[in-house]
Amino acid sequence: MRVGVLVSGNGTNLQALLDAAARNELGVAQIAVVISNIPNVPALARAQRAQVPHAVVAHRDFASREAFDRAMAAELDAHQVEAVVLAGFMRILSPWFVARYPARIINTHPSLLPAFPGKDAPAQALAYGAKLSGVSVHFVDASLDGGPLIAQRAVPVRADDTAHSLHLRIQQQEHALLPSVVKALASGALTVSGRHVLGHDSDGHA
Amino acid sequence: MRVGVLVSGNGTNLQALLDAAARNELGVAQIAVVISNIPNVPALARAQRAQVPHAVVAHRDFASREAFDRAMAAELDAHQVEAVVLAGFMRILSPWFVARYPARIINTHPSLLPAFPGKDAPAQALAYGAKLSGVSVHFVDASLDGGPLIAQRAVPVRADDTAHSLHLRIQQQEHALLPSVVKALASGALTVSGRHVLGHDSDGHA
Repeated sequence: MRVGVLVSGNGTNLQALLDAAARNELGVAQIAVVISNIPNVPALARAQRAQVPHAVVAHRDFASREAFDRAMAAELDAHQVEAVVLAGFMRILSPWFVARYPARIINTHPSLLPAFPGKDAPAQALAYGAKLSGVSVHFVDASLDGGPLIAQRAVPVRADDTAHSLHLRIQQQEHALLPSVVKALASGALTVSGRHVLGHDSDGHA
Repeated sequence: MRVGVLVSGNGTNLQALLDAAARNELGVAQIAVVISNIPNVPALARAQRAQVPHAVVAHRDFASREAFDRAMAAELDAHQVEAVVLAGFMRILSPWFVARYPARIINTHPSLLPAFPGKDAPAQALAYGAKLSGVSVHFVDASLDGGPLIAQRAVPVRADDTAHSLHLRIQQQEHALLPSVVKALASGALTVSGRHVLGHDSDGHA
């Protein structure tokens, strides 16, 4: 299964996928193209180093969200992409785009959803006084951070944490979890029924 | 520190505390009295078996929530209680009662708060499609399930879970965690600053 990765910045989740691919840990998933909505970001250099096709589709060049999304979809089509991973991609996708890839768009969020949706989740967790937070990998639907959950991992909150130190600890889990979810998706192991997703290892049904 | 335990039913959390006390695992905490708002519940038999003083203060005998709470407080005073543990206690406490024991009332909730507050938290987690849930131990304040968190432990949600099987798995963690929190409270280890509670082992500051 050919996978497109959408990025906006540093691309550490992209790097986790590229590293997993180099170790043959993505199964039948292949990273077909990396698309950034912002030029010259580190994520594009990561794709370049890994000799993965990459492109810039600059959202500022388009009059509407959907026009931008259609240009991204054309680029994805040019690389015969069937599934999309959001790896630090900072734009909200149009309903048109989401409907084009049903149960085929994956995002990560740095909290145990439904706790702490939206921006700055690690800072939200600290402000709340949470003792555990973590990472959620989920399908993208029309809701913000509300699509069906595929996998979650917990991370302790330390007494001396800053939002930054907590986020780094969450990202360690995120970088381990995301490739395993992409592998499961590509293999056809994931089944979706309403809000319920089965088939990832962490279900205890490896 | 003399601790009062409020119960309404089966009292498995009470049993966890009684068992911990029998193993000398509550430190300087001593279970001084068990109070039930309902007569003849199994929790009272558990107190009886452990030779712990116990009493019934039946909420149906009182015209108002605060009158009921004042009767409970009188019973707690008679046993020189300084801190209160809610162990499956099914009544909402009045602001008067909560204010009488500032940062001295502990409750448990079968989810990783702020996710799934209120009733039937395990069923809520299943309906949402959560991959992790767990248990939260928190101080009680005027909000419902919103007081400062003391400790949280994660529990996996299995593909074949029912609300009952998930709740049983959560309770296993609850029964391990609650006595350690009561021990920490009684020792004076817990410090509260706004929503932030420090001093329980799970902070990594044992």
